[in-house]
Amino acid sequence: MGWGDLGAFGEPSKETPNLDQMAADGMLFLDFYTASPLCSPSRAALLTGRLPVRNGFYTTNGHARNAYTPQDIVGGIPDSELLLPELLKKAGYTNKIIGKWHLGHRPQFHPLKHGFDEWFGSPNCHFGPYNSTERPNIPVYRDWEMVGRYYEDFKIDLKTGEANLTQLYLQEALDFISKQQASQQPFFLYWAIDATHAPVYASKQFLGTSQRGLYGDAVREIDDSIGKILKHLQQLGISESTFVFFTSDNGAALISAPKQGGSNGPFLCGKQTTFEGGMREPAIAWWPGHIPAGGVSHQLGSVMDLFSTSLSLAGLQPPSDRQIDGIDLLPVILQGKLIDRPIFYYRGNELMAVRVGLYKAHYWTWSNSWEEHSKTGLSHESSQNPIFMLILANGELVPVLGLFGMARRGIDFCPGQSVAGVTTHTQEEHTYLPLLFHLGRDPGEKYPLSFASEEYQRAVEHISGLVQQHKATLVPGQPQLNVCDQAVMNWSPPGCEKLGKCLKAPESDPKKCSWPH
Amino acid sequence: MGWGDLGAFGEPSKETPNLDQMAADGMLFLDFYTASPLCSPSRAALLTGRLPVRNGFYTTNGHARNAYTPQDIVGGIPDSELLLPELLKKAGYTNKIIGKWHLGHRPQFHPLKHGFDEWFGSPNCHFGPYNSTERPNIPVYRDWEMVGRYYEDFKIDLKTGEANLTQLYLQEALDFISKQQASQQPFFLYWAIDATHAPVYASKQFLGTSQRGLYGDAVREIDDSIGKILKHLQQLGISESTFVFFTSDNGAALISAPKQGGSNGPFLCGKQTTFEGGMREPAIAWWPGHIPAGGVSHQLGSVMDLFSTSLSLAGLQPPSDRQIDGIDLLPVILQGKLIDRPIFYYRGNELMAVRVGLYKAHYWTWSNSWEEHSKTGLSHESSQNPIFMLILANGELVPVLGLFGMARRGIDFCPGQSVAGVTTHTQEEHTYLPLLFHLGRDPGEKYPLSFASEEYQRAVEHISGLVQQHKATLVPGQPQLNVCDQAVMNWSPPGCEKLGKCLKAPESDPKKCSWPH
Ligand SMILES: [Ca+2]
Ligand SMILES: [Ca+2]
Repeated sequence: MGWGDLGAFGEPSKETPNLDQMAADGMLFLDFYTASPLCSPSRAALLTGRLPVRNGFYTTNGHARNAYTPQDIVGGIPDSELLLPELLKKAGYTNKIIGKWHLGHRPQFHPLKHGFDEWFGSPNCHFGPYNSTERPNIPVYRDWEMVGRYYEDFKIDLKTGEANLTQLYLQEALDFISKQQASQQPFFLYWAIDATHAPVYASKQFLGTSQRGLYGDAVREIDDSIGKILKHLQQLGISESTFVFFTSDNGAALISAPKQGGSNGPFLCGKQTTFEGGMREPAIAWWPGHIPAGGVSHQLGSVMDLFSTSLSLAGLQPPSDRQIDGIDLLPVILQGKLIDRPIFYYRGNELMAVRVGLYKAHYWTWSNSWEEHSKTGLSHESSQNPIFMLILANGELVPVLGLFGMARRGIDFCPGQSVAGVTTHTQEEHTYLPLLFHLGRDPGEKYPLSFASEEYQRAVEHISGLVQQHKATLVPGQPQLNVCDQAVMNWSPPGCEKLGKCLKAPESDPKKCSWPH
Repeated sequence: MGWGDLGAFGEPSKETPNLDQMAADGMLFLDFYTASPLCSPSRAALLTGRLPVRNGFYTTNGHARNAYTPQDIVGGIPDSELLLPELLKKAGYTNKIIGKWHLGHRPQFHPLKHGFDEWFGSPNCHFGPYNSTERPNIPVYRDWEMVGRYYEDFKIDLKTGEANLTQLYLQEALDFISKQQASQQPFFLYWAIDATHAPVYASKQFLGTSQRGLYGDAVREIDDSIGKILKHLQQLGISESTFVFFTSDNGAALISAPKQGGSNGPFLCGKQTTFEGGMREPAIAWWPGHIPAGGVSHQLGSVMDLFSTSLSLAGLQPPSDRQIDGIDLLPVILQGKLIDRPIFYYRGNELMAVRVGLYKAHYWTWSNSWEEHSKTGLSHESSQNPIFMLILANGELVPVLGLFGMARRGIDFCPGQSVAGVTTHTQEEHTYLPLLFHLGRDPGEKYPLSFASEEYQRAVEHISGLVQQHKATLVPGQPQLNVCDQAVMNWSPPGCEKLGKCLKAPESDPKKCSWPH
């Protein structure tokens, strides 16, 4: 989901009344970031409070490549990392994850081995190959055991776009909250649904309800679900003792547009990039009776702050034996303070860009390689030349020579946008002369400041000092996303025997994973 | 001002608390349009309820050219047009225009000859040449007489960006409202400030207050002024009998970005174009006690509707002897109805595009000519190659060879955006096979629908019928914006003698005006 997908953030169809109300009753963060422009590293950062380059959720197979946890990934979250639920457990919290885990699917990476007490959901995302015989379909777990697989037992109809997964995840959340309230037990619920990821789906009751197509239907369902969760908290009388935060793991994937893609509002590019569209996220904090209604914060925030903020709420200290990148946002949320801190934009172990205040310096730029960009042959441009005509006759359009639809597009992470020297198709280094943008005057990253201006020199000097400091103290974690092996896929998850769903794994054949982007 | 310039419409700095509150207390229109992508024709349409092609505010000097009323324009609003204040007068309203008139500056076009009772403001915009000896500075009128000129008596400091014009226009509005309230007289106030037009200015107290630079300062001042006007209505106890509507005359001029340019949010291109960024406008209706608070409307609306809606509010009928394009929005505003109607996007007398429901069909596309686009020589691209280096020494950046800033850009109405076959630099006709977009799934007009799809054929067939009907009944007005003559400039406006500000007009030498865009 992207920054621009919510009504409160300016989506022109304004179809998220519940999230908009959540913002009106809570605090809207306009400058909130994920820690990576794609899923797994972003989620690892959220749960550890640390940059992926520290917690190991990155690859060194190529320079500045994005990597995640597909089914054949060998790595996962290292045991040495301290996850939020591990720490909350000590303060008596019951921790549940509902939905997508994405921190590794091999037994040692199971969420219940990393602090969660309950799990209903899947280790990987639901995308393809679909119902393929080459690879197992993604399992859905209840706690320690698989209870079925996507496409088999948990239906996703790719033709109609229908799937009731979000409803299942909603009901699970409502039940968990009820149970905890009844037993007067504090809880941490990580509601990590996988809806709005392509291939997009929604439940039947939401299909066709949006102006925005199937993607909008999915957004409506999420919005409706969040409305129901908040209402449930209120009805149980625990809304004033429950802190709720809404955000996303990366910007909208514009490659799925327009039929299955979201909006990053006025920002450049989308998922997979370190431009604002890839990493600035919608974010709302909600805590009735504590957060003043209608607040708007320009605090530079990060998903990693949710780690530190949650610990603070639980009265816990963050670990002192390691670098934590997240900060405690409570002074921001409760007292409206602004804390000076930079935002680091990484791809792999390369620091691509830094934001300090309203300035963003790019040390490296890359959208996608020319080969990947134009992969599927016919370019967008060529598709614009009509090779058939319609003739107007009696006010009716009669197709005379119908031949083709729109040509397939390549993997373009910046469709319709092209800023010379910025959305580069080769990896461009700007280390000694960073490209600098002022995100207040130029949120879309279209107008680099003049290298010769005083403003440039003053800002870059300040930023360079912070970057030097950051790099000097950085201890990279062991990269987890380098090795892939077909043998480690979800062939026979625990519980498969009961279901008769065990598949035979092929011989182990570990290889370097391929990360083209 | 653009669709994306208000917090309520998703501007990432969210610096318009008063307009956002106005929206929260009233109704937000998400699909509201101007009648032309630039100033004069848009304002003529607002006051006549008619498309510029009908009321004469267009040119036929070239195909599909944008035209307005510079100082040397010979034409203006024809007497035969019925302006909103002319009609309201009959119902006892006192009509005042504060700010920019822009419907012609020669004596016969004076606003007090077209229904207004009072005027404080200027006939033209304040942009350059500035303090030039070749042409007179723009006069400021109080009613029938000039009371000074921009840059001379009404200071605009182009270096600091300081000018107190918006404060003057605000005070004038507050005084007028007080006077009308005291005398219990109904009134129509057309508050048509010229702030946010380049060169951008703001009053001293607003300079430097925005994250967005000088343009943001100007927006903040407008926001603050509107807050004061609404508060004044409330304090006088007449807010429940005063209908207020806020909108803009065209999309943000991206050519002025980033230092003096606004935001069109997720929409394509800006002012001067018939893409959404050029013509979709922020719009808010406010009428406490009548309009339910927090309303959001997807009604396709137009500035021309303000003509019909205002007449309806005054209990008047629209003229029946001519085609009126505006519709009465009261059923939309008060009862939440949705009225089916198309939006026509014109340049000159060419119908460039039509929106019907969520579909927009382009019959012609043009952003700007290649010559104009790259007019100033150095391209944006070449400016990205640094021709000097900075060396990092002790954490400080030392300029070694400083030579140039960013190269000047050409007149690019779509900076950073380039959609193949859509943002064309030659005038491209698509009459027989319109480019079709679904503005719900694709608000940015990036993905034309496949010509071969059923959806395309169904939509285009429907739209074509409406277009045929529209064209069959269209009676174009006499074009007013064809002839220019240095002799008609504001050399000696009435009242100039008293001020000693009469200038000598050159010999009359009428020529075809040049309209390159
Ligand atoms: Ca651990
Ligand atoms: Ca008249």
